[in-house]
Amino acid sequence: MKIPEILIVETVHQPGSLASVLQVIAEAGLVIESLNALKREQGRTLWEITLEMDEAADRSLYERIDKLPNARFVGKSDRVFNRHRGGKIRMAATLPINTNEVLRDVYTPGVARVCLAIRDNPAEAYEYTSLGNTVAVITNGTAVLGLGDIGPLAGLPVMEGKAALFASLVGINAIPILLEEKDPRRVVDIILAIEKSFGAIQLEDFAAPACFEIETELRKRLQKPVLHDDQHGTAVVVLAALLNAARRVGRQLEDSTIGQIGLGAAGIGIVRLLRAYGARRILGADRNPLALERLESLGGERATLEEVMAKCDVVAATTGVKGLIRPELVRPGQVILALSNPDPEIEPIVALRRGAVFAADGKGINNVIGFPGLFKGALEARAAEFTDRMLMAAAHSIADLAPGSDLVPDALDPAVHAAVAAAVRAAAVA
Amino acid sequence: MKIPEILIVETVHQPGSLASVLQVIAEAGLVIESLNALKREQGRTLWEITLEMDEAADRSLYERIDKLPNARFVGKSDRVFNRHRGGKIRMAATLPINTNEVLRDVYTPGVARVCLAIRDNPAEAYEYTSLGNTVAVITNGTAVLGLGDIGPLAGLPVMEGKAALFASLVGINAIPILLEEKDPRRVVDIILAIEKSFGAIQLEDFAAPACFEIETELRKRLQKPVLHDDQHGTAVVVLAALLNAARRVGRQLEDSTIGQIGLGAAGIGIVRLLRAYGARRILGADRNPLALERLESLGGERATLEEVMAKCDVVAATTGVKGLIRPELVRPGQVILALSNPDPEIEPIVALRRGAVFAADGKGINNVIGFPGLFKGALEARAAEFTDRMLMAAAHSIADLAPGSDLVPDALDPAVHAAVAAAVRAAAVA
Repeated sequence: MKIPEILIVETVHQPGSLASVLQVIAEAGLVIESLNALKREQGRTLWEITLEMDEAADRSLYERIDKLPNARFVGKSDRVFNRHRGGKIRMAATLPINTNEVLRDVYTPGVARVCLAIRDNPAEAYEYTSLGNTVAVITNGTAVLGLGDIGPLAGLPVMEGKAALFASLVGINAIPILLEEKDPRRVVDIILAIEKSFGAIQLEDFAAPACFEIETELRKRLQKPVLHDDQHGTAVVVLAALLNAARRVGRQLEDSTIGQIGLGAAGIGIVRLLRAYGARRILGADRNPLALERLESLGGERATLEEVMAKCDVVAATTGVKGLIRPELVRPGQVILALSNPDPEIEPIVALRRGAVFAADGKGINNVIGFPGLFKGALEARAAEFTDRMLMAAAHSIADLAPGSDLVPDALDPAVHAAVAAAVRAAAVA
Repeated sequence: MKIPEILIVETVHQPGSLASVLQVIAEAGLVIESLNALKREQGRTLWEITLEMDEAADRSLYERIDKLPNARFVGKSDRVFNRHRGGKIRMAATLPINTNEVLRDVYTPGVARVCLAIRDNPAEAYEYTSLGNTVAVITNGTAVLGLGDIGPLAGLPVMEGKAALFASLVGINAIPILLEEKDPRRVVDIILAIEKSFGAIQLEDFAAPACFEIETELRKRLQKPVLHDDQHGTAVVVLAALLNAARRVGRQLEDSTIGQIGLGAAGIGIVRLLRAYGARRILGADRNPLALERLESLGGERATLEEVMAKCDVVAATTGVKGLIRPELVRPGQVILALSNPDPEIEPIVALRRGAVFAADGKGINNVIGFPGLFKGALEARAAEFTDRMLMAAAHSIADLAPGSDLVPDALDPAVHAAVAAAVRAAAVA
């Protein structure tokens, strides 16, 4: 994995001093990603130099820079950590509280009348509070990204990332909730005890198989949208990508043989939605016998990794295992989505070289294209649940928005999320 | 209680049409608070007219306005409800997520490194997430304002109000959490299961006596600041007001006889903090025998309402009962804080007329002067708990900031909250 590494270097204000630094970097075989002057004073300049480095890169260049006559290696910075400093989300008041009149309206004594109105008619909470635009992003940290059970606190940066995306892309208030609990029944009880705080619930990074029980029970007990994003958010985006891949090779997705490698939360979610869409033949591979039983209960067929690669027109992988798909297993004409983050089962470029017609990884086929619009649409419709019809509407909308030969559209385009939300809303109301 | 009532009135574009409307309002004996032209088109103007009305006001003026030849009564609006529409808080991203580079830094794959850093050293969560600036505002809705047990959902406007004030006054992210649970032990268990999400916990509008058990248990179990605002936030502001009142009449608070009418959460919190401060003699009145036992366990003496009024130099009331203190009970020279919201035990103007030297109600002596700085200071110090030393520091700071003859400073002045936070922080570190 290449990590941007940021060097802080001071140079003397003389011709050639920066050039000598760049020369050292060039000799180390490294490419400069960006370069900024941070400060200029007393005949010296402080530079921020971003390099693309991987673990194998030669760090001795720091010393070589430090030994230059007109430069000094001050230290390293880290853009990713810098961007996380202090957190990625912030609560704000929707109106300035700057006069006593406003204070008395939004707090005591005025607020009392709003409380009583909600006591008398609970639905008014959707009108006079943020409830209808608020989503809990709940995790117990048992399956964070591909990192496994790192605990809820260590999962917080992902939850804040989701919340920041919810805010940026669709203006939803998302609240990270970290649960210190693994027992599915107790997880459900805790969520039921606090659910009144939220208009909808996104379950996030709960490990299989507990995630299935938790989601099923919450959906049964609550009259508000509940979605385990790892299962269904991912499935929606995968279905969208496969709809486009099928369209582009002129084949019906329903008639294709589809392979799913890895039958955890994401894999099972994909199989389930593809079956609901109408896919007839799905082969699935996993080391866990219980996961294979779950596959069969959804109408899939168990297979080995090699059988999946040999027989399927379309293969999705969600195993968390870097490099699991050996290049020689790729068949010409296959569509391959190797979705594990941060490292895919096979690099798309490698799969394409072996003859795949389409190949993508989890950075491109990412649930960030799906979840914001899914929740916005469901909240706007005040839906009581996420139906397959809503998930399918989101997938079709995402597929239709992909430009040119791309399988999915740009995740940062607000128009994409507005269109997905509108499609989900219409499906909810229908 | 006077409520601002907003009339929407349309007039024909002719001299005298607005005057005729105002004449009807004048004849009804009502004062105009504000008047705005909302829209002007097709020979007509739409006016928003805000009147001060109480329940007894004569509403037939709407019909009389409607019968005017050049005016039409369109309907009523409500400023308080208007200001609540859609909620009072909003989550935002701290940095714009507008390029793929930012997306990959704040979400996958970059975020994975931050997760692992926190897994390896949990304290880093305070550096690289919002945790250290996030407070849960938790209620089960059993004692919302003076409205009683109206349930957590109906309490949400108060929790959002607190969150909006936290954001506005000290830049803290406050998260309303509504608990559907009354059993103190289960409340504690639920909060312990989600506490990792927050840097500190504000308990809010939990009824006595459950509130005492809940707070005590959470303080014992958690190494982070926990505060039941109704008890201690109120007590801090009352102590500040009494310090100033005593100073202004040249008497030591320690040597005064203090009366506390109402021994629920707020009353007990006041008695406790005044005792911790050094007040020697406190008389307390309440109808509940258990509350009187609690008073005695804190070193107070039980008394009737009449005894409190007859014997005490200083009286605070937190009963939720409008007009409980009959004017004839007031002794000349008394300090009276009648703190129930929205309606006090005695109107300050009435108490002053009967000879009180200082009198105030809960709109003036409000915990909004205390809680923002208390939490900001505790979070900045990364305190493991709220100590009496911190509460006392806040009270002294608030007292010192009151201008002229006021008992407390302006609640909307950010400098006040910054000073309180600094005092609390210093006391926490000391």
